[in-house]
Amino acid sequence: MSTTTALEGAPAPLALSALYAPVAKEMEEVERILRDELRNPHPFVDELVRYGCLLGGKRLRPALLLLTAKAIGPVRRDHLVLAAVVEMIHTATLVHDDVLDEAEMRRHLATVNARWDNEASVLLGDYLFTHAFYLASTLDTVLGCRLIGRATNIVCEGELRQKGSRGNFELTEQEYVSIIEGKTAELTAVSCRLGALFSGASEKLAGEMDGFGRDLGIAFQIADDLLDVLGEERTTGKSLGTDLEKQKPTLPIIRALELATPADREELLELLTGDQRQPHLVAPYLERYEALDYARDRAASFAQSARRRLDLLPGSPARNILTLMTEFVVSRSS
Amino acid sequence: MSTTTALEGAPAPLALSALYAPVAKEMEEVERILRDELRNPHPFVDELVRYGCLLGGKRLRPALLLLTAKAIGPVRRDHLVLAAVVEMIHTATLVHDDVLDEAEMRRHLATVNARWDNEASVLLGDYLFTHAFYLASTLDTVLGCRLIGRATNIVCEGELRQKGSRGNFELTEQEYVSIIEGKTAELTAVSCRLGALFSGASEKLAGEMDGFGRDLGIAFQIADDLLDVLGEERTTGKSLGTDLEKQKPTLPIIRALELATPADREELLELLTGDQRQPHLVAPYLERYEALDYARDRAASFAQSARRRLDLLPGSPARNILTLMTEFVVSRSS
Repeated sequence: MSTTTALEGAPAPLALSALYAPVAKEMEEVERILRDELRNPHPFVDELVRYGCLLGGKRLRPALLLLTAKAIGPVRRDHLVLAAVVEMIHTATLVHDDVLDEAEMRRHLATVNARWDNEASVLLGDYLFTHAFYLASTLDTVLGCRLIGRATNIVCEGELRQKGSRGNFELTEQEYVSIIEGKTAELTAVSCRLGALFSGASEKLAGEMDGFGRDLGIAFQIADDLLDVLGEERTTGKSLGTDLEKQKPTLPIIRALELATPADREELLELLTGDQRQPHLVAPYLERYEALDYARDRAASFAQSARRRLDLLPGSPARNILTLMTEFVVSRSS
Repeated sequence: MSTTTALEGAPAPLALSALYAPVAKEMEEVERILRDELRNPHPFVDELVRYGCLLGGKRLRPALLLLTAKAIGPVRRDHLVLAAVVEMIHTATLVHDDVLDEAEMRRHLATVNARWDNEASVLLGDYLFTHAFYLASTLDTVLGCRLIGRATNIVCEGELRQKGSRGNFELTEQEYVSIIEGKTAELTAVSCRLGALFSGASEKLAGEMDGFGRDLGIAFQIADDLLDVLGEERTTGKSLGTDLEKQKPTLPIIRALELATPADREELLELLTGDQRQPHLVAPYLERYEALDYARDRAASFAQSARRRLDLLPGSPARNILTLMTEFVVSRSS
């Protein structure tokens, strides 16, 4: 299970942080909160927790929260705290992902399980989750806790559903979208909802911003899954697409299976799940049924839906950046 | 790292549930909440989550919360919800412990990692943690979230500190107590504090009840660690005490090392940490320095301190049971 997104894996990180210009000062504040919170008097805990904090990467979720907030009203202290909270939760899921994937590197750093061990990763992830919840509870209102608790639970449910669907190539497109909506888009959605609500947005506007973050998250994840298959195509036989290697059904495969003739379908399933699996040989089938183009179109369509939801916002630099973000995702998967 | 307690491992579970008589009806309500909450429309998630729910065992923490509440005032709906929350958090830590310990059985059931795999355990634990936080946030006040978020974070910190202290036989008794206070006693302490506060207790009384749960938790863990060494003694050379096997310094060892002559100390350290470790040969040293008796006395002294704190409560069946609980722990380690 991977909760990294296409945007985060982008080769030009500078471009992305430049995007945060309208909230640059606020993002610095968030870094300060993260640094201050993720400090511990016990040396071993301190070392681990600080290292974990470095792994989070591009700070996409805090940026979404703050940009949404700024597009609607003034950015307040509560926003900064909540931005740190969503980043901590994201980092917790990454640290636990690395245990499951037995990954060795993340963002040019050794993963926690590679540098320490799985035990350290499990405990560090738990520490980050619980610290995030505690931090959310320092606000005066229970609203932040409620939205973050619910969203995080849906993320975990999505991860479990994805695990349960491994090797199930009967999975429909609808089920696939519902799973990535849980595991990836729920957290981007709640980031935008929190940004809006704590800027005094109406329920209606907050719901639209939630929808924006949700569509954006889904577009990201489709694009990310697509890159996994594309990596596969380019390096045929060398480095297997990790999703296919793990029998994780993603959109291009689902699409090809849906359109395939009975004979092609049988061959494809044999390559994916047979006794002598050869997932690196799926490319011709994806091409035959234009499955990659289809997945690209679906990502673009979710990105467009996200973009349209921004129409409710008044014009502002923050809104412009949110619009740009919806374009990033599509540009990565073509 | 084990957060099981002496009481929970007791051979006569009936005796313990009989202890819950003053809150028997409320405990049934808590079971109902747990059952209702830990249900999921997705079959794989549902199966895992329901299985996890069975692993929790004796429901000690909800019982502490409800007994404390009842000893002070009426038990309300909020208490029942919070009791379910602390049990879910406890279960989450157990599920993650089983990953780390590579345990195969818990309470006569296969552990989640044995029945499914480590990935399922990590995700299920995360699901339980986040569901607990969400459930806490359904209350009107942020107080429950705040106390539970903070306590759970301290539990994780305690687990990390314990991990960091493995193989460190310089650990002092004070540091050892501080670690078990975090990893075990913080959750029993907050259970009692929540029970008290939501019954309208003053800050002073709530603090005393927190202290009761804390002393009780420390006594439990000392007793539990002692049983690990005793198991060791009885089955010399066959089944190593798991704590010693993992180079986890516990009180009897810390005490023996503290009192040992330089020569004995060197021999003992060689047995515990040398190239050819033989932790099953430590028994004579523990005997020579009366280290087991000392640990027993320390457990008894924390239990007594817990008992004394109950003096602030008016007489009631609930208070009587809380008193009885402080005796259980000592009876197990003699």
